Amino acid sequence: MKHRNILLALLLLPLTAMATEVKSPNGNIVLNFTVEEGRPTYSLLYKGKEVVRPSHLGLELAKDKHASLGLNERDLMDGFLLDKEETSSFDETWQPVWGETRDIRNHYNEYVATLSQQWQTAPPATDQPGKRLQPRRHRRTILIRFRVYDDGIGFRYEFPQQPDLNYFLIKDERSEFSMAGDHTAWWLPGDYDTQEQETQECKLSEIRGRFREAVNWGNSSVAVFSPTGVQTSLQMKSADGLYINIHEAACTDYATMHLELVDAETKALSTKLEGNSNTYTPNPGPSAYPLPRPFTFVSHLTPDATGLKGAMQTPCETPWRTVMVSDDARDMLSSNLILNLNEPCKIEDTSWIHPTKYCGVWWEMIVGRGSWHYTNDYPSIKLDQIDWSKVKPNGTHKANNENVKRYIDFAAKNGLDQVLVEGWNVGWEDWANMWKRDVFDFQTPYPDFDIKMLNDYAHSKGVKLLMHHETSSSTQNYERHLEKAFQLMNKYGYDAVKTGYVGDIIPRGDHHYSQSMNNHYLYVVKEAAKHHIMVNAHEATRPTGLCRTWPNLVGNESARGTEYEAFGGSRPDHTCILPFTRLQGGPMDYTPGIFVTKLKEWSDNPSWARITIAGSLALYLTMYSPLQMAADLPENYEKFDDAFQFIRDVACDWDESIYLEAEPADYITVARKAKGTNNWFIGGKCDENGHEAVIKLDFLDKGRKYDCTIYADAKDAHYDTNPQAYTITKKVVKAGQTLKLKEAPGGGFAISLKLKD
Amino acid sequence: MKHRNILLALLLLPLTAMATEVKSPNGNIVLNFTVEEGRPTYSLLYKGKEVVRPSHLGLELAKDKHASLGLNERDLMDGFLLDKEETSSFDETWQPVWGETRDIRNHYNEYVATLSQQWQTAPPATDQPGKRLQPRRHRRTILIRFRVYDDGIGFRYEFPQQPDLNYFLIKDERSEFSMAGDHTAWWLPGDYDTQEQETQECKLSEIRGRFREAVNWGNSSVAVFSPTGVQTSLQMKSADGLYINIHEAACTDYATMHLELVDAETKALSTKLEGNSNTYTPNPGPSAYPLPRPFTFVSHLTPDATGLKGAMQTPCETPWRTVMVSDDARDMLSSNLILNLNEPCKIEDTSWIHPTKYCGVWWEMIVGRGSWHYTNDYPSIKLDQIDWSKVKPNGTHKANNENVKRYIDFAAKNGLDQVLVEGWNVGWEDWANMWKRDVFDFQTPYPDFDIKMLNDYAHSKGVKLLMHHETSSSTQNYERHLEKAFQLMNKYGYDAVKTGYVGDIIPRGDHHYSQSMNNHYLYVVKEAAKHHIMVNAHEATRPTGLCRTWPNLVGNESARGTEYEAFGGSRPDHTCILPFTRLQGGPMDYTPGIFVTKLKEWSDNPSWARITIAGSLALYLTMYSPLQMAADLPENYEKFDDAFQFIRDVACDWDESIYLEAEPADYITVARKAKGTNNWFIGGKCDENGHEAVIKLDFLDKGRKYDCTIYADAKDAHYDTNPQAYTITKKVVKAGQTLKLKEAPGGGFAISLKLKD
Repeated sequence: MKHRNILLALLLLPLTAMATEVKSPNGNIVLNFTVEEGRPTYSLLYKGKEVVRPSHLGLELAKDKHASLGLNERDLMDGFLLDKEETSSFDETWQPVWGETRDIRNHYNEYVATLSQQWQTAPPATDQPGKRLQPRRHRRTILIRFRVYDDGIGFRYEFPQQPDLNYFLIKDERSEFSMAGDHTAWWLPGDYDTQEQETQECKLSEIRGRFREAVNWGNSSVAVFSPTGVQTSLQMKSADGLYINIHEAACTDYATMHLELVDAETKALSTKLEGNSNTYTPNPGPSAYPLPRPFTFVSHLTPDATGLKGAMQTPCETPWRTVMVSDDARDMLSSNLILNLNEPCKIEDTSWIHPTKYCGVWWEMIVGRGSWHYTNDYPSIKLDQIDWSKVKPNGTHKANNENVKRYIDFAAKNGLDQVLVEGWNVGWEDWANMWKRDVFDFQTPYPDFDIKMLNDYAHSKGVKLLMHHETSSSTQNYERHLEKAFQLMNKYGYDAVKTGYVGDIIPRGDHHYSQSMNNHYLYVVKEAAKHHIMVNAHEATRPTGLCRTWPNLVGNESARGTEYEAFGGSRPDHTCILPFTRLQGGPMDYTPGIFVTKLKEWSDNPSWARITIAGSLALYLTMYSPLQMAADLPENYEKFDDAFQFIRDVACDWDESIYLEAEPADYITVARKAKGTNNWFIGGKCDENGHEAVIKLDFLDKGRKYDCTIYADAKDAHYDTNPQAYTITKKVVKAGQTLKLKEAPGGGFAISLKLKD
Repeated sequence: MKHRNILLALLLLPLTAMATEVKSPNGNIVLNFTVEEGRPTYSLLYKGKEVVRPSHLGLELAKDKHASLGLNERDLMDGFLLDKEETSSFDETWQPVWGETRDIRNHYNEYVATLSQQWQTAPPATDQPGKRLQPRRHRRTILIRFRVYDDGIGFRYEFPQQPDLNYFLIKDERSEFSMAGDHTAWWLPGDYDTQEQETQECKLSEIRGRFREAVNWGNSSVAVFSPTGVQTSLQMKSADGLYINIHEAACTDYATMHLELVDAETKALSTKLEGNSNTYTPNPGPSAYPLPRPFTFVSHLTPDATGLKGAMQTPCETPWRTVMVSDDARDMLSSNLILNLNEPCKIEDTSWIHPTKYCGVWWEMIVGRGSWHYTNDYPSIKLDQIDWSKVKPNGTHKANNENVKRYIDFAAKNGLDQVLVEGWNVGWEDWANMWKRDVFDFQTPYPDFDIKMLNDYAHSKGVKLLMHHETSSSTQNYERHLEKAFQLMNKYGYDAVKTGYVGDIIPRGDHHYSQSMNNHYLYVVKEAAKHHIMVNAHEATRPTGLCRTWPNLVGNESARGTEYEAFGGSRPDHTCILPFTRLQGGPMDYTPGIFVTKLKEWSDNPSWARITIAGSLALYLTMYSPLQMAADLPENYEKFDDAFQFIRDVACDWDESIYLEAEPADYITVARKAKGTNNWFIGGKCDENGHEAVIKLDFLDKGRKYDCTIYADAKDAHYDTNPQAYTITKKVVKAGQTLKLKEAPGGGFAISLKLKD
């Protein structure tokens, strides 16, 4: 590997020949890098097939009034020379605090290109007439670091500290991902504030035509930016059978990346989406550089209120941009590329971090049979002006002592670790959408929620309460109360908090996925760690593997969760896509386990979950998370107590995970070995077409017998017409046997395998 | 006073006759209020002369996507009916914690107009065909409350809680102040971020032509918005000798008000100022209502990053809008109207709040002979990445143990209470202008500042250190560290902090005078009060009398302070204007006392202060503040120790204050009686033309004798050619005597009068 003379190479060789080539450890993946007419350019092959065609890398910088004071404005786009190339190899196995496997191998070949820009500016003024000074010479260096794995690559920009690159503002990052064909994509509309959309499946060339109908315009915060803008993680499949996924890793103090597709109709990048009045954010303006070829995705960062994408101080780096690729869909699910690209754990004592199964006072309010708020007597609430002891209760408030005790009893009886209680604290009367800053104090319980009594009661039964902090996206208000709110949790024995960011961000104009908000979410996680508190953040940014570094970040939402089953429902294939997309960056608190799917059976809500009971059980395996909720009502579980046995039994931390079958939006089958045991659990989930799973039990200990319980769809089960039809079969199995299981439309199965001693 | 039939009145009577009339207690001021074609309208007379011609009142509301959820959008501009009128009188005398007088009389007649808007919207949908529902009727009520004093009026809008006015966003407040003529105005360019301008003196009709040159474009944060935009407090003088001042009182969780002048060239309100690239803020768009007549000021609030002016939740109210008026300029200075319109003190135990004289490690850095920062070895600093004990010092860092001890010794020797030390904490290497969020932690001292030793040393000598928190306007960073920073202060015995907000606000797009920033400043003051800490906030919002309610807010800058004497200097009349304008809302930490005015005498700085030494002494009286700095270097004071005796002697808290002479931008003479004593101090300050003060000592105790020391300009003193020429005369005086004192150009005098026992 050496630095060739580019000019000569251009004359003598075709483009690919002049580039530096870096192979993955097994050689399946080949990265090519070069500097083409001053622009950093990479491409990617998998087993000789084009994955990423030659694509430019760079950043456009914003102009700013402080330029004269040292804020750099010169773009990091072109005029680069390749100064140095370095390669190295890395192979290490590490153990996550919790996860799908006990050991994770981090094995890659690394390539670092050191690039420089040089230019001159006018000579400094001189007092001496006749004396001529030399022009000032400037030289700026950046690095692009690639890590080439067997299942994909990561690359990032690194900016060393230097006089000509000290501070800069990002107009936008222009990392290109040029696709080799009109792939099928599973995509969400690119949006600065939400991912609570249903995934679209279509060709790249069809995205523009599908865009408007794909947007969930009714969501509490929507800010789409381009008719071909899509979110990551973006899963694709090529006509010749390659599975390609684009995402990012280790996004900390940087804006979340979206992708803007250049298609045949694209005239310029980052043009405003007509008719989108749902964002105040100014248009950052088109790129000043030539448009790449169609089927190229270009990175598009989330702006702040002024339309700028980031404020940077060297030394610093961007998050990793990742491209995962395989000809086997299962590799997309078993990949640890995102986690590997994150920093090792920064929490020294992690003994207080633990996987958790929980139930909660939640679903009945989501469905509409109860309220978070305590009174109906005020058009709006000012926290400091109400004597809650004198307020007239509305009778529908669910976070009351009696109801919470009922859930505690249920948790204790069924071996669940914690009980989430939403609506425990004052302020829910007018909490959302009204640009109200001081919406909650996170400390004052409603009069019917006896925080001391309930925590004592729970603890006496071996159960903990799970704290809830809905912020209404009023982040300044949350930060002002954070320390005291965590102190309260410590005082009463909470060790986990579910946070929420519903609605538009306050301060107004900011977005859920901006640099400042990403900084905020991580600030909360770090502050929580000081108090030994685990965080499960809803409506926050999409995860990028930060849970490796901060394993007290045990969950995120950042997608369309089970709550949407009460808001009209999601398609049956929804949960067969999420593991390929949303879950790449970290676990999702999907809150599975709805047994009574037709909500009108117990409420006035006409919505329904498009899933069978057996399918619901499967989600505890196919949707990996260290945090698993049994989301339905206790009384609904009591009706199907034999099926609920699986939820009682299933683990949520694993020594080993084997994806047995997978196809995006069709089916996923996975076997997992419970942490520290010899017991296995297997789950299979399919789309609306049903699926026949074939499970070879060759991962079991040879020669040993296992008590096997199979929770399967009944023959006539169907997510719509017969969702509660399931069978429970018990038998003894051993390694090498094959199980064939028929999954109903919108169904699935769950299996527990207990080693017979 | 009764509610007349408006329609009838319109037909039968001239406009002024139909209005309700409210007189001030002594009858000199007459307010008229009516609803004219649905718009609230007021006018003001003083001794029969027009002060405010009929002017409309109202607010335009912003359109918002959340309107359908209950965010009200209907303007509060027209369609009003006058439902009810109430009047009352109030007369109370209260005692400020500190101030110009021991007692303050709050005496006014109050008038409250209750106004309603009524409208209909389409009937609700119905399932029953044939059934027709009635249209929905809406009714909305607001109050406008006027308080009519003998020296002016205050009015505000009040918004009761009601279904049709629950939450709203302000596009802009449109309170009009229609002037009766082309008055002379002393004005600053209206700016969302700074008041560090030199005051302009010209006719209203000349403002537009003078605007661009009036802007201090070099300031660290500039955001002007209109070529006729001016700041409050705005002092004017009419051709017939009326002094008129427009300002506001009690601005808490609301944007700071500017005034936009409608002149002959005005085409529309709130049009963008061409060529002002110094703000990212979107243009809020023109008003939808007819333009008022020329010479009308219209309120213009400071926007947030999205261009909106405020988010409101009822019940709530605006700040008071004030119009002070008199035919005697001295009444402008002695008025307590702004304080009276603020809420009484909310701090129960105020024993820890005290007036303070201080010196500090500050002026030598401002002038350029030393640095706040400790090292020159880094292009930029990341606080968590530097081991300060290993950093190479630059040798110019002034907040070092030895230098601080020198100031402590100086303070102890001269009876000064505290020593401000700027540059004590890490982060000054790259603190400003670079959009850096995590710029300071407010807790880590530089290695050469031994915080424990220095505080112990100071306390052993009866002196305290005065804390400094420069925030770089990175407000989120400050709030994150606030509690620990205050704990540090408590630990080491600090009881006062000077805060600073240099540069553009972070989060980017926000402004120093916005609703959210006004909330921030007050948040800091309230948090400080919990820790028994006094606050002196620099570059914060302009004061509106909040120090009555929160007397631990002992000072603000919010104007061009003494520091500008090192940045090119201010005009000699500058300090003869500030008491009429900036000081209306509360004391200014002007940091007076420069004795060596030609800075090149001890530094390389060619700038100089346009003032004589006697003039400098006068400022301790004419620029009222409970916080007074002796800003010059100890060694400079030692050269003029006889003059410095006055600074040692002068009080900074008062039982009585009598303004003896005053004319804006020309001269101010004031006598003050030191709190709890029988001693008086008199100060006179004049502009570049000099002044002969005539002081009748009729306020002294009759028949008693006083030791009188007069610090006066020498005969040939001059702010430029001979600034250090002063005389000190001692004599014995008694009540009834008259002193005539000649003030040099840019000069003044100071007198101490000590009762002979």
